Amino acid sequence: MKGLMQDWPLLVHRILDHARDWHGAQEIVSRTVEGPIHRYTYRDLDRRARKLSDAVVKRLGIKLGDVVGTIAWNGYRHMETWYAIMGQGAVVHTLNPRLFPEQLVYIINHAEDRWIFTDLTFVPILEGIQDKLPNIKGYVIMTDTGHMPDTSLKNAICYEDLLEEGDEGLQWPQFDENTACGMCYTSGTTGNPKGVLYSHRSNVLHAMATCAGDALGLRSTDTIMPVVPMFHANAWSLTFSAPMAGAKIVMPGAKMDGASVYELLETEKVSATAAVPTIWLMLLQYLEQNPDLKLPHLEQVVIGGSACPEAMMRSFIENYESDVIHAWGMTEMSPLGTLGTRKGGLEGMDNGTWWQTKLKQGRPAFTIEMKITDDNGNALPHDGETFGRLKVRGPGIAKAYLKGDGAENFDNEGWFDTGDVSTIDEHGYMQITDRAKDVIKSGGEWISSIDIENFALGCPGVAEAAVIGIAHPKWDERPLLVIVKKPGEDVTKQQVLGSLEGKIVKWWMPDDVAFVDEIPHTATGKISKLTLRQQFEDYRLPTA
Amino acid sequence: MKGLMQDWPLLVHRILDHARDWHGAQEIVSRTVEGPIHRYTYRDLDRRARKLSDAVVKRLGIKLGDVVGTIAWNGYRHMETWYAIMGQGAVVHTLNPRLFPEQLVYIINHAEDRWIFTDLTFVPILEGIQDKLPNIKGYVIMTDTGHMPDTSLKNAICYEDLLEEGDEGLQWPQFDENTACGMCYTSGTTGNPKGVLYSHRSNVLHAMATCAGDALGLRSTDTIMPVVPMFHANAWSLTFSAPMAGAKIVMPGAKMDGASVYELLETEKVSATAAVPTIWLMLLQYLEQNPDLKLPHLEQVVIGGSACPEAMMRSFIENYESDVIHAWGMTEMSPLGTLGTRKGGLEGMDNGTWWQTKLKQGRPAFTIEMKITDDNGNALPHDGETFGRLKVRGPGIAKAYLKGDGAENFDNEGWFDTGDVSTIDEHGYMQITDRAKDVIKSGGEWISSIDIENFALGCPGVAEAAVIGIAHPKWDERPLLVIVKKPGEDVTKQQVLGSLEGKIVKWWMPDDVAFVDEIPHTATGKISKLTLRQQFEDYRLPTA
Repeated sequence: MKGLMQDWPLLVHRILDHARDWHGAQEIVSRTVEGPIHRYTYRDLDRRARKLSDAVVKRLGIKLGDVVGTIAWNGYRHMETWYAIMGQGAVVHTLNPRLFPEQLVYIINHAEDRWIFTDLTFVPILEGIQDKLPNIKGYVIMTDTGHMPDTSLKNAICYEDLLEEGDEGLQWPQFDENTACGMCYTSGTTGNPKGVLYSHRSNVLHAMATCAGDALGLRSTDTIMPVVPMFHANAWSLTFSAPMAGAKIVMPGAKMDGASVYELLETEKVSATAAVPTIWLMLLQYLEQNPDLKLPHLEQVVIGGSACPEAMMRSFIENYESDVIHAWGMTEMSPLGTLGTRKGGLEGMDNGTWWQTKLKQGRPAFTIEMKITDDNGNALPHDGETFGRLKVRGPGIAKAYLKGDGAENFDNEGWFDTGDVSTIDEHGYMQITDRAKDVIKSGGEWISSIDIENFALGCPGVAEAAVIGIAHPKWDERPLLVIVKKPGEDVTKQQVLGSLEGKIVKWWMPDDVAFVDEIPHTATGKISKLTLRQQFEDYRLPTA
Repeated sequence: MKGLMQDWPLLVHRILDHARDWHGAQEIVSRTVEGPIHRYTYRDLDRRARKLSDAVVKRLGIKLGDVVGTIAWNGYRHMETWYAIMGQGAVVHTLNPRLFPEQLVYIINHAEDRWIFTDLTFVPILEGIQDKLPNIKGYVIMTDTGHMPDTSLKNAICYEDLLEEGDEGLQWPQFDENTACGMCYTSGTTGNPKGVLYSHRSNVLHAMATCAGDALGLRSTDTIMPVVPMFHANAWSLTFSAPMAGAKIVMPGAKMDGASVYELLETEKVSATAAVPTIWLMLLQYLEQNPDLKLPHLEQVVIGGSACPEAMMRSFIENYESDVIHAWGMTEMSPLGTLGTRKGGLEGMDNGTWWQTKLKQGRPAFTIEMKITDDNGNALPHDGETFGRLKVRGPGIAKAYLKGDGAENFDNEGWFDTGDVSTIDEHGYMQITDRAKDVIKSGGEWISSIDIENFALGCPGVAEAAVIGIAHPKWDERPLLVIVKKPGEDVTKQQVLGSLEGKIVKWWMPDDVAFVDEIPHTATGKISKLTLRQQFEDYRLPTA
């Protein structure tokens, strides 16, 4: 027997409808690529998104299922483009401008993009690769007539001219809520990037999960600045969850240096913001250089993408009275997975234990199922010590990559293997200990490279540290610690290993230390252990 | 093109899974019908719900689509029963014990209930009507062996004995998220009660909407006491939304007097609670009689079901420093519709205007579409003055009543006509002005009976007031004000009408005042305007 409740498909345009009807006067403030600050309201966003949507159908011929690339900063035109295209049942494919040109070529062709919407900033990049993009019909330059550049891009259309051709009376078409809606490629460290294909349903449910009081708890009284780019997994959903909550939005555009971020936090009275640690490092450095500056409006800083260092968390909380929420997620998860907020029942936890807990990646929001398993898929205990492969399930989590790539990451019970290794403590707080492929397997047991690296970084004279597994005849693998010394400082193998004593268990102790001038990094700035392992392929441990 | 996100049907057992896995140690505290306070955790609730679910299949033969009645107070066994039955794809039909016995007979038979779960309290009621319930296979008495009553109920089974037969290893079956899940009859003032049939999807989405930071914003750090009964539209969803948020739950059982409610608020440190104004009147009277008592833990009181009087709101806020959220909803809406929380952008509103706004029924949460229309279905402006028929749409709103009853309340665009008349102001705050059928239509314009009644109640000597429309040859209808005087006090027609002058527009002024000894009421305590109109059917206005 079916219930007798209304059929109301979870389509993303409903978020915009809600913002227009009940928070129509709420502001969206954008730092534009052209320079000035732009301000308007949800009512304007809705009107222009519908106008643009009508125009992309009439002028560009975009229809249900078409893929449209965007390569743009966070700003109002980028939001309009999203809602305009998604509202037609077409797919917005956000392109990460920090990828290498050949990676961009690969994903644009692999995704079968038809048109590309681009900020002025990225016109030169696209000009450089357009000859390798045979399926692109044309480019929409997200600016007005006065700022249109001289460009060799074929079928280059001025965004504001295009928009003018549309009818703001457009009614959103209706379709199945499982219709594809957004696409984002993961920048894996091995192989080609793999495409994640979001649906309307997954985006709406994920935004609702994000808005929950026990998750981010966004409210219409908040002013939210997503510094995290829209091309990073939907700006962590904020382009959906902020209008859903009716919150004021502040878009930083291209400027993410400390001074620029501070300026918007202050002038727009931002109450909540989100980005990776690198951004916050720049902000905190700027604040340290300007000791008169405070953050009186900022209540909540969401930090994810990579682990938040304790010093950063303490600085926000203790020096600036802004709370930090440590978050973890993945492109494959829409992306929110866990948040490090205080849980009911832990009110009596002593401060030291709470700090240790707060530095973990957090606990899952409703709609996220999560477990850790051994290599055979057996669930492991939540004791905060046992670590295993982190697997997740839920309506905002991928069941496959585009075109069947990476099928080995999905099991037949519907779990997605995150590729991370983590612990989960008795209270449900999860802590990433390593990437699965970077774990060192010694005698059937796992050694976490991240832990050793973090302790090694505490040794004076050490600038950068990386641990990799090296083949060993008896133990299968044993850890090698690779060190870059600080300029002009000296440090010995004995000093480095000595600094680890008492901090890690004995059998985790690296079998050797190698000093190098440079440790290789990926395009997104992470240590490339793959390259490092290749460099040390023929290395023979003294213990072997 | 479909997205590539996981198929994760929105089934209510997932709420319980989440509470068990991530808030397993959180408490559920119940005042039992047998007397003592009972305490256990979400982990226990989950275990016992699965055990019971296995038992209802094996022993009672309950299967997908079967309807099971419950007639019970708010308590842990009632929660277990819900999740156990819903988890099998069967339907929990909550019975309101305050209905007249013949109404109970009607809805139990109309809904085709198979079994009834009952608290000890209601055994005598069921014994009195069981001969008229031919399709009921048996009755589960929600108590333990020691408290089993001598009863004439056929196939009476002790709840704890039944539960013992189940296997706690039960795995929830999977089925379509649109499967029926819960049923609740509305107690209309005309005709027979009509059945609303919730689905798993509607209950999960409605709970997610309720948990939103900009709605109730429930958190795991909250302690929530639903005084509103589970047989009133899912205890306003709290039996779903509180475990979804991981909040501690306090269940008041049968005792809802001021002293009992206060005791639990105090001993369990309740931070949020919800009920109709009658409950809060009893609590506030108790507090006035005991001036030493305060409400130090209570942060938020949700008041709905009927309009919250200003004095009540002021008393909570000004005397007890507990905020009040005025809420409005309907059984047909799962039931949450609007909440009177402060909206972003209204920070600068002066205090007087904010109080006027706060006394309105509030603004819709995401997933609720809402409009007011004239009799021809044309949308009316949001100006706070124009009033029209209030219509709603959304995934938690009924598209039909059971067996096709009341089809006239649903239009072909999917809007449900609430039967209320309201205004919506420029900020989106809705205010109920009348029931549509009680509005007086005078010369093509509408007169709100509720406004006149409220002002008439301010006239000294007036105990109760009701306004109804009386046929008029020129104006179609004109208002008649019906008054019950306070015992031992006298008041004249001129005094009553004089008290309205300057408060209502001139053409709203009642054409006559009738004094009566008693105004008729419905079973749920509301003024029965239907009966009153029948009593005054032959009444001739002096102006006619």
